Amino acid sequence: MNTILIKNISLKNRIVDVLIEGNVFKQIEPEIKDVNADKIIDGTNRAIIQPFYNMHTHSSMTLLRGYGDDMRLFQWLSEYIWPEEAKLTAEDIYNGTRLAIVEMIRSGTVFFLDMYWHHQEIIRAAQEMKVRASVGVTFIEERGKKEIEDNIKFINNFKSPSNRITINVAPHAIYTVGKDLYQELYLISKVRGLKLNTHLAETVNEVNDCKKANNNLTPTEYLESIGVLDENTIAAHCVHLTEHDAEILSSKGVTLVHNPCANMKLASGAFNVPLINKYDCRVCLGTDGTSSNNNLSMLEEMKFAALLAKVSYHDTSLLSANQVFAWATKNGAETMGLNAGKIKEGMLADCLIVNLNNDRLIPNNNLISNWVYSADSRCIETVICDGNILMENYIIPNEEEILEKAKRKIS
Amino acid sequence: MNTILIKNISLKNRIVDVLIEGNVFKQIEPEIKDVNADKIIDGTNRAIIQPFYNMHTHSSMTLLRGYGDDMRLFQWLSEYIWPEEAKLTAEDIYNGTRLAIVEMIRSGTVFFLDMYWHHQEIIRAAQEMKVRASVGVTFIEERGKKEIEDNIKFINNFKSPSNRITINVAPHAIYTVGKDLYQELYLISKVRGLKLNTHLAETVNEVNDCKKANNNLTPTEYLESIGVLDENTIAAHCVHLTEHDAEILSSKGVTLVHNPCANMKLASGAFNVPLINKYDCRVCLGTDGTSSNNNLSMLEEMKFAALLAKVSYHDTSLLSANQVFAWATKNGAETMGLNAGKIKEGMLADCLIVNLNNDRLIPNNNLISNWVYSADSRCIETVICDGNILMENYIIPNEEEILEKAKRKIS
Repeated sequence: MNTILIKNISLKNRIVDVLIEGNVFKQIEPEIKDVNADKIIDGTNRAIIQPFYNMHTHSSMTLLRGYGDDMRLFQWLSEYIWPEEAKLTAEDIYNGTRLAIVEMIRSGTVFFLDMYWHHQEIIRAAQEMKVRASVGVTFIEERGKKEIEDNIKFINNFKSPSNRITINVAPHAIYTVGKDLYQELYLISKVRGLKLNTHLAETVNEVNDCKKANNNLTPTEYLESIGVLDENTIAAHCVHLTEHDAEILSSKGVTLVHNPCANMKLASGAFNVPLINKYDCRVCLGTDGTSSNNNLSMLEEMKFAALLAKVSYHDTSLLSANQVFAWATKNGAETMGLNAGKIKEGMLADCLIVNLNNDRLIPNNNLISNWVYSADSRCIETVICDGNILMENYIIPNEEEILEKAKRKIS
Repeated sequence: MNTILIKNISLKNRIVDVLIEGNVFKQIEPEIKDVNADKIIDGTNRAIIQPFYNMHTHSSMTLLRGYGDDMRLFQWLSEYIWPEEAKLTAEDIYNGTRLAIVEMIRSGTVFFLDMYWHHQEIIRAAQEMKVRASVGVTFIEERGKKEIEDNIKFINNFKSPSNRITINVAPHAIYTVGKDLYQELYLISKVRGLKLNTHLAETVNEVNDCKKANNNLTPTEYLESIGVLDENTIAAHCVHLTEHDAEILSSKGVTLVHNPCANMKLASGAFNVPLINKYDCRVCLGTDGTSSNNNLSMLEEMKFAALLAKVSYHDTSLLSANQVFAWATKNGAETMGLNAGKIKEGMLADCLIVNLNNDRLIPNNNLISNWVYSADSRCIETVICDGNILMENYIIPNEEEILEKAKRKIS
């Protein structure tokens, strides 16, 4: 098995050696001797830290970056995004996903939970670039029976190309997928042991429309009433929740994904941190698609989450650096059933090597505070996922070609 | 005079050559021939863009980065910041300012408007590192008569070491400086032709205390009533304004400085963009001190400003990328009376060279959108201020020594 030995690196303020064997952290000790490692990395003046698990993306929307910002939501979607999305070919999706993965690696993300079209192309890109991904097979009723049937067939016949790639069943939202299809997809996800990945309670309109159509039930109450919420459900956004909603989501063990940048840019609202803390809901962090963000940086996302919570609820102590760091890292890994998200012997070898001689990390009074509130992607030198080095000393193999292919002009 | 020729660079989607002679943009043309420049920079696949003018900093608070976050404001100040600030020596301030300037250069800032102690050390650091600065001579009544007298003497005898360095008269705030001293400082600023730099209407408490003490006048009304507001006044924060306040600030020509990260992190509130738009106030952007941010990136500050405005006022079209970019660049230069802030013949040669082959700037549907919503400091390759190259191809001379000296441990 391939081995990597990282020497003299800072792990939670201790200096250690870290031995990676295959895809796991084999040994973490003050000094590891007598190992003939295939590769040795000098960790002097560097820290090892767990990477990000981005729990809500539409990865190939990178191609629409900066196309029609600062507009009212419906005009933006109907005049800009939807017409342009309709033109995207499978090859575009492949190229857009590869750009997204470059961006993710550079900003320290090794896993993304995706929802988009042409799932085969997203799987291809993620597999080639050796990141972890759960790729959504996405359902919107309006797109027609044929696509729904093909998608279900795809799910039933899916064989993963590697241990890093899974798929998820992704009914888009309650306003695009009706009750029968939602329940059918829920059953499929249970039979196949897959996550159910959906948007939930993103906007006030969604809540109001749902209540009108469903006997005053909120979106969360509605999904509970049709029996599709449980510990396999991953619900993105969850901006507009009542106390009862939070109680349901907590008791059912649903994972909530907070996407602060998109919620702010689209003026959807502020995630209710006091409420979800009160009901002890499981929360992860996601960037959402690039065109409503407009990047895939989980570093930025952590800072936006923490600062938005404080200002929205007039409480400087709300959503501490440590709490939001857990949302962005180990909570995502745990939700996905990955034995990852911590730098610990026996766990999967996912990690970042961070340069402590970077201006943004000086002085080093508190690394997690600097990481959440000050760092940017320039601090990340090396990225390791599943024991593979994805970026070494700022270099990603093949990056130039990937970026060139993603320079798609909007016509 | 020293000349720099930048070849084949993108300026607002045109490809041009840019000739810098001394400290001005001498010529900007599709092709500049027959020039024997001292230095030639290849601008292929790069863009030239105006740099940032950071209009509110306490620069050497870099040394307190990450020290006591996520706390209630008063506990944070009284138990953490003030005791630690009291220990900072002149040498610490010098080292902290140099760290701040490294951070600013790397994130594209060439000017900062500062307010802190040991102004001589801040001037020394800025002069050595060739950035522009307006260094505050700061007044807080509690610090005693001796300091006030020394400061006034310093202002009256000040001779600038270069055209890049000015000073400003900085009464800290209405709750730390009484009426008489405020008025005296206002007169001194008028006689010396200097800016008056102050905090204003940052918190609800400040507004309430002011109204109680001053016959129900708001902080803005109070400052107007004592006759110290005019086009030389620069007022940081201005979070809690009434319609009447906005009217006063606009009609007096006061410059407002928005500091979204600090206002969010300290839970002070959201700057009222619809109100200041309605009264057409002059607005600039600032990062505030590092310990309430926790960095000095104007790139991040622009994104926070735009997104905070949208979510706070339920309007996706509020504070567009173009508007916030103007706040962060030319508005600051204009306020300071600098013939800078645009890439234009005859103007001062302040500019950034940005790598368009960076993943965050691909595709290039709209550079300003990418700049505001997607970029980070990794996109900035070269920084020029006043015709001097401060960072070339990511290298800042002497950076290693500067960072080493700033690694101050909090005891």
